[in-house]
Amino acid sequence: MYIKKQRLLTPGPTPLYPPALHAMMASDIHHRTEDFRKAYRSCLADLKEVMGTANDVLMFASSGTGAMDASVSNLFSKGDKVIVCVAGKFGERWAEIAKAYGLDAHVLTVPYGQVVSPAQVEAALALAPDTKGVFVQASETSTGAAHDVRAMAAAVSKTGAIFVVDAITGLGTMPLDIDGWGLDVVIGGSQKAFMIPPGLAFLSVSPKAWKFAETATLPHFYFNLKKEKKSGDAGESSWTPSTALILALAEALRYVKQIGMAHLIENAQMLAAATRAAAGKLGLELFSAGSPGSSVTAVRAPAGMDSGVIVKEFKTRFGSVIANGQGSMKGQIFRIAHLGYFDFADLFAMVAGLEIILNANGYPVKYGTGVAAVQEIYEHAAVKPQTVNA
Amino acid sequence: MYIKKQRLLTPGPTPLYPPALHAMMASDIHHRTEDFRKAYRSCLADLKEVMGTANDVLMFASSGTGAMDASVSNLFSKGDKVIVCVAGKFGERWAEIAKAYGLDAHVLTVPYGQVVSPAQVEAALALAPDTKGVFVQASETSTGAAHDVRAMAAAVSKTGAIFVVDAITGLGTMPLDIDGWGLDVVIGGSQKAFMIPPGLAFLSVSPKAWKFAETATLPHFYFNLKKEKKSGDAGESSWTPSTALILALAEALRYVKQIGMAHLIENAQMLAAATRAAAGKLGLELFSAGSPGSSVTAVRAPAGMDSGVIVKEFKTRFGSVIANGQGSMKGQIFRIAHLGYFDFADLFAMVAGLEIILNANGYPVKYGTGVAAVQEIYEHAAVKPQTVNA
Repeated sequence: MYIKKQRLLTPGPTPLYPPALHAMMASDIHHRTEDFRKAYRSCLADLKEVMGTANDVLMFASSGTGAMDASVSNLFSKGDKVIVCVAGKFGERWAEIAKAYGLDAHVLTVPYGQVVSPAQVEAALALAPDTKGVFVQASETSTGAAHDVRAMAAAVSKTGAIFVVDAITGLGTMPLDIDGWGLDVVIGGSQKAFMIPPGLAFLSVSPKAWKFAETATLPHFYFNLKKEKKSGDAGESSWTPSTALILALAEALRYVKQIGMAHLIENAQMLAAATRAAAGKLGLELFSAGSPGSSVTAVRAPAGMDSGVIVKEFKTRFGSVIANGQGSMKGQIFRIAHLGYFDFADLFAMVAGLEIILNANGYPVKYGTGVAAVQEIYEHAAVKPQTVNA
Repeated sequence: MYIKKQRLLTPGPTPLYPPALHAMMASDIHHRTEDFRKAYRSCLADLKEVMGTANDVLMFASSGTGAMDASVSNLFSKGDKVIVCVAGKFGERWAEIAKAYGLDAHVLTVPYGQVVSPAQVEAALALAPDTKGVFVQASETSTGAAHDVRAMAAAVSKTGAIFVVDAITGLGTMPLDIDGWGLDVVIGGSQKAFMIPPGLAFLSVSPKAWKFAETATLPHFYFNLKKEKKSGDAGESSWTPSTALILALAEALRYVKQIGMAHLIENAQMLAAATRAAAGKLGLELFSAGSPGSSVTAVRAPAGMDSGVIVKEFKTRFGSVIANGQGSMKGQIFRIAHLGYFDFADLFAMVAGLEIILNANGYPVKYGTGVAAVQEIYEHAAVKPQTVNA
């Protein structure tokens, strides 16, 4: 056994921002005090700022799925017609939630690795003008593909439906003009671009969506948007908040603001471009080549190699946890994450490690080939020496 | 500004072992309790075990220099003849301490980058048979050179002198058979191979050295070996201990024992070999080519390039802190560390970053060249996939 640092390099939980972790040490704090309200208020205000929206932003102590649930149970009624875009495992989750609540879902399914087109959504809306909602993933984490959310929003906003976007891995990895494009609900999670552990979900709610909340009749209790809005305005959460994570989020958001959301997105985009370039140079096939997102890049294992071998050897050789394919993609693809607290040094090391693993498993590559592709993207990108604290 | 992780990649403080840092959170503990004595005792026992000695091991709340001071002030008397080997900045420190305490020091000085030979020590001992002590650095951190401690010990042990070895960066990076070779005092520090922050020093004391303590007359108070030995036997420190660091050390030592000291040393040696190979492939000159140690590799900046530029750009481009030359070597060399919590993934990223910095500053290199040299050393070394927890 030699030194192998345990590196968390998955598309969520993502690598953690150390000052945010350290902030959790201050969680011997009571949640119904002005000290804590200050932190809670700053999270809500900073989330609005980095999400770039005038819409209300609410937080829940839950995983991202909790906010997905909340957006259905608070904004719809049983039997409502909705369109669900399914391009992977997380699209399937939208379909499952719609089913659980008895919505009348028209599911637009495409094969893993592809995306639902705005034209498909437009056509489905034309067929059912009384559609109440359209559900999509901005970034489908299971395949690395990104939807054209802007064009979809243009289609939805012309109708009476609201557009509900799971941006759990989309936030911070792709531009999302919530107010300009008309994204009625946008959902995020703490363990993605926000660089802290899982346990917090948040969502923005547009005025159009709030109107839906007035007439929706599905039952709900814990996830109550109206109650949470009222609590948030008072600097509190409706139920006991996850104090440690709120303190961590407040610290992480300070960092995100210091970087600037545009640069955070560019950071992910550069790493994604560099990963695609490296994969190309190594002769590897991209899984979602047609519409690659920047939260995660899914790469096909070489023919005859189980991608689980690559995942396992990253752990055993280098101590790094990278993502396998999910569901039916398990064993076929591996996924290199870019979102959150990831930098070029991480990618240099990952690609160098990947080259070694490929070589050791019957897929010869010339050492340094993929790394050089990453270095060239770094050199030609906008990354320049700067004075930075972290 | 983009994401750039603050990476501490210097030869001390070295990168920190996270579970050891987390252990510091338990330092709301009183130092005169059985709970704390348990931790203190385990540190002393584990230090003995990983240092591989039957000699007493004592700890101080101080930097490594404190233990250097202690070894002089506790074991010698004013006017004692000693031989001081000076091959760099830390050798100079031995000479300064000897001077401060009024020892009669014969200083054997070699140019930075070279080492004092065992023959030089032997000749000096022959010239002055009444020499009481010989001082040396196992690893001279300022130049990356390693002394032939074993051969020196063979010369010293034949005389009445004691051999005092600053192994602050030697421990965990080179074999040191304390009892077998006759190393009378061996000094270590917490912030080196032991992967925790600075603030603890420790030293082993041989029976021969203890005899010196009986007759030594130099004044001392805080650093009192005899008192500390008595306290340590009772599971305590003489003065208030650095509780947080003791808890961290206890955790780090568990990890070192899990790896095994032999593998920890091999880890540093492989990284050093890989760094030398990369430097060679990049056409860079090693500073201490004749006797390179494995704690740190000093590399000359290319002709016409200030090594400070490389150090600065590691920080500004990649957020990494690497070491410049010290003293007269500042601006001429930069130093890549290998000791403690360093792994191959760190080195892949460092060498990839170095290539970019060299290219950007008028020293063209082919991207991936140095990284490939590291990958090849990895492949040919004994590093194989293993199941490891950290």
